[in-house]
Amino acid sequence: MCELLGMSANVPTDICFSFSGLMQRGGVTGPHTDGWGIAFYEGHGCRSFHDPHPGARSEIARLVRQYPIKSHIVVSHIRKANRGRVCLENTHPFTRELWGEYWTFAHNGQLKGIKKQGLDFYQCVGTTDSEHAFCWILDRLRKRFPRKPHNRKVLWQSIGELAAQLNRRGVFNMLMSDSTCLYTACSTRLCWLTRSAPFGRASLIDEEMSVDFSQETTPDDVVTMVATQPLTANEDWECMKKGEFQVFRDGRPCL
Amino acid sequence: MCELLGMSANVPTDICFSFSGLMQRGGVTGPHTDGWGIAFYEGHGCRSFHDPHPGARSEIARLVRQYPIKSHIVVSHIRKANRGRVCLENTHPFTRELWGEYWTFAHNGQLKGIKKQGLDFYQCVGTTDSEHAFCWILDRLRKRFPRKPHNRKVLWQSIGELAAQLNRRGVFNMLMSDSTCLYTACSTRLCWLTRSAPFGRASLIDEEMSVDFSQETTPDDVVTMVATQPLTANEDWECMKKGEFQVFRDGRPCL
Repeated sequence: MCELLGMSANVPTDICFSFSGLMQRGGVTGPHTDGWGIAFYEGHGCRSFHDPHPGARSEIARLVRQYPIKSHIVVSHIRKANRGRVCLENTHPFTRELWGEYWTFAHNGQLKGIKKQGLDFYQCVGTTDSEHAFCWILDRLRKRFPRKPHNRKVLWQSIGELAAQLNRRGVFNMLMSDSTCLYTACSTRLCWLTRSAPFGRASLIDEEMSVDFSQETTPDDVVTMVATQPLTANEDWECMKKGEFQVFRDGRPCL
Repeated sequence: MCELLGMSANVPTDICFSFSGLMQRGGVTGPHTDGWGIAFYEGHGCRSFHDPHPGARSEIARLVRQYPIKSHIVVSHIRKANRGRVCLENTHPFTRELWGEYWTFAHNGQLKGIKKQGLDFYQCVGTTDSEHAFCWILDRLRKRFPRKPHNRKVLWQSIGELAAQLNRRGVFNMLMSDSTCLYTACSTRLCWLTRSAPFGRASLIDEEMSVDFSQETTPDDVVTMVATQPLTANEDWECMKKGEFQVFRDGRPCL
């Protein structure tokens, strides 16, 4: 299994605190030693860091923990390989362009028979189920909507339907983004938490580290974190239901 | 204008030394302060680092200079913006997937009228001429070859023809890779250098730094560096001719 971490915020926000907790699960408090990756959106731009080495001992992860990259959407993943060998091209999140936007995708779970589904526009570079599922989603969206639909809800509904189809093939916990929204699907485990004023102090579960968000934020900030398991001990994380699909935009749930 | 740096090697090789020299041109010895980026291929995988901030003062560039990422192909770029504002989505190199491979592209120059060329499969995320030219190349390749041609030389010839067409629109110095080859086109300035046994010492032009490659290599290593301007003072860089197209594979020129 793997673990996911995502963020949606209404102002550019860094994820150093939560990412520190997640990386501990990449070899110290968790067994996810088969690589990690993170994608940061800044406007329409997206930059990613990938490393096929354990997060807890990665020099690049150390930089990401310490250097505050301000972003409004983040998609991150630590990997415990089940299908697909440990190598750079199998390291999530995966990125493709659709409708002039960078889409990124990270997944936890296994999907039976997904590789028998043909792909047209998008091909896999690596050998994971996950990348195949991502290419399949984008293929379907592209066929259904040659241009990006003006009505967001039509798009959200389509993505939700595709997520439900994938969910029937096994386990499909997903984070995906198109630079505007963070799309989330819960098959077995995914939880979230919205931080807004009045902000308080939060303490990581996986590391002795706490932060007083009232010192780091302005009263209008709204930031939602999404994770496989709660990252902090003293906040109320909401567990998503099995089969639930949710869209976050500017830090708030939309559905 | 911008500057380019590329590498093709027959063994995984780090680029810390040359990259250090290039980054000095991002604000110290050169005016290229509008961002930088670098893509490393490791097998079929590709990881990139992008920063819209000056390379000479970038925390991320510091990591890339100091942390040896071993790669067989590298494409790097430092930017002095002329078209397209300074932001992450306009920062080279750009990446897209074609035929199940990640293609990356970096460009120096300006191309008249390129944005009037329609795009089908690939759309731009940013607003640069360069990204449009890249999407146009991939569109053309994809239309001509729905599958990757078995005969490499057929592919190389097509890319060379597309580069020549772009060159007629202005200035087109290019580095591009598909994870196997490093494709280079010289419109005004591009030079290269192959290092092989017996290896010697090299000294950077832009920084007081030298390295004895005989201590860092094995006798079978072959590494070609490609750059807008020579990076070392005591080696013989070969200048490409105007309009020249060259393909490097495993550290050696193929044409």
